Amino acid sequence: MKFDFWLERVRADRPLVHNITNLVVNNIAANALLAMGASPVMAYAPEEVGDMARIAQALSLNMGTLTSDIVRSMKIAGKAANDAGVPVIFDPVGVGATPYRTEVAGNIPEDVKLTVLRGNAGEMSVFLGLAGEVKGVDSLGSHQSLPLVMKEYAKKQGVVMIATGVEDYVTDGEQIWRLGNGHPLLSHITGSGCMLTALLGAFVGVAPKHSNLQVYAEACVAAVTTYNVAAEIAAQESAGPGTFQARLFDSLYKIDGETVKRMAHVELVSEHE
Amino acid sequence: MKFDFWLERVRADRPLVHNITNLVVNNIAANALLAMGASPVMAYAPEEVGDMARIAQALSLNMGTLTSDIVRSMKIAGKAANDAGVPVIFDPVGVGATPYRTEVAGNIPEDVKLTVLRGNAGEMSVFLGLAGEVKGVDSLGSHQSLPLVMKEYAKKQGVVMIATGVEDYVTDGEQIWRLGNGHPLLSHITGSGCMLTALLGAFVGVAPKHSNLQVYAEACVAAVTTYNVAAEIAAQESAGPGTFQARLFDSLYKIDGETVKRMAHVELVSEHE
Amino acid sequence: MKFDFWLERVRADRPLVHNITNLVVNNIAANALLAMGASPVMAYAPEEVGDMARIAQALSLNMGTLTSDIVRSMKIAGKAANDAGVPVIFDPVGVGATPYRTEVAGNIPEDVKLTVLRGNAGEMSVFLGLAGEVKGVDSLGSHQSLPLVMKEYAKKQGVVMIATGVEDYVTDGEQIWRLGNGHPLLSHITGSGCMLTALLGAFVGVAPKHSNLQVYAEACVAAVTTYNVAAEIAAQESAGPGTFQARLFDSLYKIDGETVKRMAHVELVSEHE
Repeated sequence: MKFDFWLERVRADRPLVHNITNLVVNNIAANALLAMGASPVMAYAPEEVGDMARIAQALSLNMGTLTSDIVRSMKIAGKAANDAGVPVIFDPVGVGATPYRTEVAGNIPEDVKLTVLRGNAGEMSVFLGLAGEVKGVDSLGSHQSLPLVMKEYAKKQGVVMIATGVEDYVTDGEQIWRLGNGHPLLSHITGSGCMLTALLGAFVGVAPKHSNLQVYAEACVAAVTTYNVAAEIAAQESAGPGTFQARLFDSLYKIDGETVKRMAHVELVSEHE
Repeated sequence: MKFDFWLERVRADRPLVHNITNLVVNNIAANALLAMGASPVMAYAPEEVGDMARIAQALSLNMGTLTSDIVRSMKIAGKAANDAGVPVIFDPVGVGATPYRTEVAGNIPEDVKLTVLRGNAGEMSVFLGLAGEVKGVDSLGSHQSLPLVMKEYAKKQGVVMIATGVEDYVTDGEQIWRLGNGHPLLSHITGSGCMLTALLGAFVGVAPKHSNLQVYAEACVAAVTTYNVAAEIAAQESAGPGTFQARLFDSLYKIDGETVKRMAHVELVSEHE
Repeated sequence: MKFDFWLERVRADRPLVHNITNLVVNNIAANALLAMGASPVMAYAPEEVGDMARIAQALSLNMGTLTSDIVRSMKIAGKAANDAGVPVIFDPVGVGATPYRTEVAGNIPEDVKLTVLRGNAGEMSVFLGLAGEVKGVDSLGSHQSLPLVMKEYAKKQGVVMIATGVEDYVTDGEQIWRLGNGHPLLSHITGSGCMLTALLGAFVGVAPKHSNLQVYAEACVAAVTTYNVAAEIAAQESAGPGTFQARLFDSLYKIDGETVKRMAHVELVSEHE
């Protein structure tokens, strides 16, 4: 996996990532993108989200504190991105927690062609109709067949699927990558998944437009691994979740491809395991 | 006071606390709850707040950046919580600063049965019709009879009343606790009161449903004291308000009941003092 | 330049600054004001923004995540501030990025009499009709004639104009100040310009009501320089953007007029340079 390639591209291109995200993470999602070398913009008004999405390198949608106005803006932005060939990342935060979230999580992929769909393992299980459990926005567990069901859905829909947790799974419908980096402190700060959803925009955004799904999947594997390795480094210098959050931005800012490659735990897993 | 009991219950139960809070503190309120061991969720849409409140262990309402839409959602969520026996905490941020805030602060307790009502001393004085002063969202002073008037209101309305400041007062309508922990740096970061309002949800949320008011009051005394002791520890390692905020989350994450008990300044004050 | 005078006034008066700002920076703008010694309040509801603006010492408007509701509230608050003689600061974040932002950035100064208008060099160039470039909310470059065109606009409109960047320019329509403080890390955290826009409210807010434009400009030079010197000090103790943000609040909290005066790079530049 060419970690240095993707990371260097992000820093060289400084991709504009348009985020329609939630009230909890606007600040930290922007800071994660800036620390990584990308250029974040948050825009919500229906009057401008189409224009903003069209000039962006990626559009990242996150329904963490959805309202009907925000859902409307997500659809306008998503369609504009689709028309302009701008990749769209979608994070169905808390799907399954309430009927409204489940409904919206089902609607968005019908109206907007997605490039990447990411959630925690519980959310992805619920999204795919498996027995999964969410408690508010936290995953309580997932089905053991999740990676294979994700692969099927990815192939059918032509989307990169990502489930994060102690281990992370990425699939483009052909292959499944199992990723083993990260740190427990990530689950003690809010928005650790949402920051990743924003960063996926930066990595996917520097792929050539209309890349095939395998290229986007590789960008996603690089994004998840870079983020999780940065978290491992940040944790070494942290006395708890507060200093960890600050150090995570330092770490994203300083990390290089060599370090990611050296520390990466990435493996292709067989379809039938 | 059984500090270790309440703190251990929060960490063991990991209560889901539904927050309808303000735009300034969504991130730090979620982080305070996570650091303490609880499970925060922020949800605002009228389409889902009732469902979310019903599955939560507590509902925490904060009118720091209220709008008519948010007030509407607070009432929907509050009534759903009432129906389900979920305790409701209300923080009338900035009551008295504008007629609109004063009106809403008066309306909410008419429509929603509250378990806990918390504000700074200036806000509580204004709320209770005493001569109090607020400047924006900061307290400028309170009336010396505040604790006794709080006690009367608490008894009449069946609600735990909390006024925070250099000293904090908690009353269930029968007894008044005076709490002496905390640190001046708390007034140099935004949302220190709002984080406490969120944390009250965690402590009150692990009490058995339909507890009597004294049990809820004890949970509140434990919450305020745990938070303030954590702040004292964080301040020792801080060079100013920025590092203090980061260290506060570290401290909430690491604090144990023994430490709280050792450092606690809690006293029952007579009714007629 | 009397840096100690302005800084001491902020700390002595503790001015109430009403912010209508964006979803990314509500927390850090409030924290910057608190760290500096001012009293921040965020209020957005049309039902209360007029009342809040009237009792504030300054009103700071920032269109970073504008919606039609927020624009409406900005105009109500702005007119109330004008009626009450409360100075208004406006930050047209991302003007030029979308037609909607450009339209609103043009509208606000027609409806509200501004005291200070601040943006990065790219935004100010776009605002003034020069060839400027913005990418989302980041400046990509500005026109070399910017300071002189700002001066003309400032004189015609009776407003202090500020363009920030590697060098910052402040003009009251008579004089142009060139400021040379700051640190590259400011461009690796989100909202560094928005925090300054909030702080301008604190400094302008302690000037006597209806001061002439030169007095307000001096307050602005003091604000920009104090903020940038604080950033230089914070950067010395930082390992990257995450620790830098925390240290920036520490530094704003601890900085004194003597230090600002000693480290300041402020010069009056000739009109015809």
